[in-house]
Amino acid sequence: MNKSRAVAVVGTFDSKGEEHLFLKNRIEGSGLRVLTVNVGTKEPIPFEVSYDLYSLMKKNGNLDDGNRDKAIQDMIREGIKLIKQLCRDGKIHGMISAGGGSGTHLCSSIMRALPLGIPKVMVSTVASKDMKHTVGTKDITMIHSVVDLLGVNSISGIILDKAAAAICGMTRSQWQPDTEKRRIALSFFGFITKSAEAVKRELERMDYEVIPFHANGTGGMAMEELASEGYFHGILDLATHELADALMDGYCSGIGPDRFEPTPGKKIPRLVTPGGLDCAVLEFTRRHIPEEHRDRKVFFYDFRSAIRLTLEESRVLAEQLSDKLNKDVSNVHVLVPTRGWSEADKESEPLYDPETNAYFVKIFKEKLDHRIRLEEVDMHINDPAFAQMAAHVMDQMVKERS
Amino acid sequence: MNKSRAVAVVGTFDSKGEEHLFLKNRIEGSGLRVLTVNVGTKEPIPFEVSYDLYSLMKKNGNLDDGNRDKAIQDMIREGIKLIKQLCRDGKIHGMISAGGGSGTHLCSSIMRALPLGIPKVMVSTVASKDMKHTVGTKDITMIHSVVDLLGVNSISGIILDKAAAAICGMTRSQWQPDTEKRRIALSFFGFITKSAEAVKRELERMDYEVIPFHANGTGGMAMEELASEGYFHGILDLATHELADALMDGYCSGIGPDRFEPTPGKKIPRLVTPGGLDCAVLEFTRRHIPEEHRDRKVFFYDFRSAIRLTLEESRVLAEQLSDKLNKDVSNVHVLVPTRGWSEADKESEPLYDPETNAYFVKIFKEKLDHRIRLEEVDMHINDPAFAQMAAHVMDQMVKERS
Repeated sequence: MNKSRAVAVVGTFDSKGEEHLFLKNRIEGSGLRVLTVNVGTKEPIPFEVSYDLYSLMKKNGNLDDGNRDKAIQDMIREGIKLIKQLCRDGKIHGMISAGGGSGTHLCSSIMRALPLGIPKVMVSTVASKDMKHTVGTKDITMIHSVVDLLGVNSISGIILDKAAAAICGMTRSQWQPDTEKRRIALSFFGFITKSAEAVKRELERMDYEVIPFHANGTGGMAMEELASEGYFHGILDLATHELADALMDGYCSGIGPDRFEPTPGKKIPRLVTPGGLDCAVLEFTRRHIPEEHRDRKVFFYDFRSAIRLTLEESRVLAEQLSDKLNKDVSNVHVLVPTRGWSEADKESEPLYDPETNAYFVKIFKEKLDHRIRLEEVDMHINDPAFAQMAAHVMDQMVKERS
Repeated sequence: MNKSRAVAVVGTFDSKGEEHLFLKNRIEGSGLRVLTVNVGTKEPIPFEVSYDLYSLMKKNGNLDDGNRDKAIQDMIREGIKLIKQLCRDGKIHGMISAGGGSGTHLCSSIMRALPLGIPKVMVSTVASKDMKHTVGTKDITMIHSVVDLLGVNSISGIILDKAAAAICGMTRSQWQPDTEKRRIALSFFGFITKSAEAVKRELERMDYEVIPFHANGTGGMAMEELASEGYFHGILDLATHELADALMDGYCSGIGPDRFEPTPGKKIPRLVTPGGLDCAVLEFTRRHIPEEHRDRKVFFYDFRSAIRLTLEESRVLAEQLSDKLNKDVSNVHVLVPTRGWSEADKESEPLYDPETNAYFVKIFKEKLDHRIRLEEVDMHINDPAFAQMAAHVMDQMVKERS
């Protein structure tokens, strides 16, 4: 059975032919099959390959190789199409590539189109830089090449050999979760940890599996993407805080436009609370409060601090959130705890400000489609009773669907 | 033989016990041995471990667990000591860990102390952030956990299983370079690529193996570190450009104080040229030239541009470089091409400025220890003849040692 599993060796063979041929030989040597895919945007093609996208696209006039940026974009598009097809057809069970700056950009863009759990190994000269746009929300394995990739030498050979061994191990391994439980995605962040832990316990008691996501930009987006891959029976969006940080360019910003929008092609019940919508988390400490925030209430945390949002900012957030939820009328339910939305937004805590919260709720209710259920409850978000209630509502929403 | 190979499963078992126990079971299930190392800085210790650094350090009074930062620093120090010892004694052949922000910091710090080629796999919630301080110059394999690590669920289980499979494959694999050639480390960057390619060809013709390093901050530091691990018979420092970018906070900055300093405990011949010392590479384009650089000569490249250095900046660099080289009098040789130091610093090219180069050389010669050999040659750095000469001098330097 393992004998028939195959790895796609994908790369810019014009400049990195030797490295990819080495990967191919090492993988075949360990007993797996290899399909080679050339996504180089120039001549030469140094060895016979299974799929030569360069020649194919040249022939079809789909490759503008006079314009390097455009050629790379074209190649990514066609590469994604081919690799997804090979994966769907069960012809490949993993993908590996090796590249410098451009090769990493090109091949990691293709990898990101593959579903979670399909092994993806990228050997890269730039793996110790910012991986936001390379790994993003995906399960890509990055291996730093340490030395430059200009052929196979006694150092790059060690790295490439380990990478080949990694993709072989990963491609062979087929652990499956033994649970048939229904799965709930749960977004949370530091200031509502208590609530998240209690919600998780409650849902697990009801025999759900809970998948927690740290709502730090990447986490929220990963949750949305896995939802669209069909992983979840329900989404408990306890932390809407990413929206506040996106507005204020805070620590948990970096969400895309799809956050809090309907899951494409799916009808997934989503329970939303204003967790963390009281504040934005920024990187400064007690010693260096930015001039523009001196007049605000501030909650000092670690290397980050939270600033209380203003009425105007709250109005903007109320409009943004209602706009998004209004697109998914039949799947959304909103639960608003009126005694505060984070550990800092609580009586006698630094960001407590019920008037601003009330103003948010007023605007939000005006804008929210009236077919969406909204309940206000006289509790704090971190109260155990609120967690119980949220879990209960989520359970009801899931049950109504099944 | 493979049967007896062992993987160190190292982690903060106080908060991530379940995940590491899962890794242990998966690795043992695939036939390798496991040593578990608890580097948590708090109770509890949820299962029996091979090395419980937490309890050991508590007992010896080496762990200040009232101060979290300090406790983590203490744990890193002791963790490095233990893991290096286990590795030296042949008791472990690979290391794996899984962590959030703190766990990734702690365990990747330990991994970085292991030599190149010992497999190091880090499953991390923060693997799509900036990896400069996590991976740095090392061959660490980063696997993004996608979901939060709060126990093993049907998504984190898939990720952890693949990680276990990766470390098993990597630990079993033992490819060795079949070359017994002498190895030369070669630093280069984009503007002297022609020279680097020609030098590489020349040295290979002389039967050396050449290991190229992109002198982009990380690359230069990786070269210095591998030199101290004993990989090289000679260093051809064609690109000193990192020093210019360090001064101007440019694209290739980020070197540490050890760059261009004597290799600790080794006597390695180092040939130095002023490759790229004419300019600093900054991130701006023709459309957005920073106000403070409007009066300079500029070479527009891609999303980066190179600015010509001033007399004063050149003086500083001459002093910095001579200070460093003066510490290694018996191993250093300097070769200065007088017709330009990069593709932009060439007659009729935008950064050509022989007066400033001459001023650098004047100061440099005044400051350089007179026992260090320095030759000026009437060539451009990218001239084929210069590459031949550099390769020849390097060869002589290596031969004088053997």
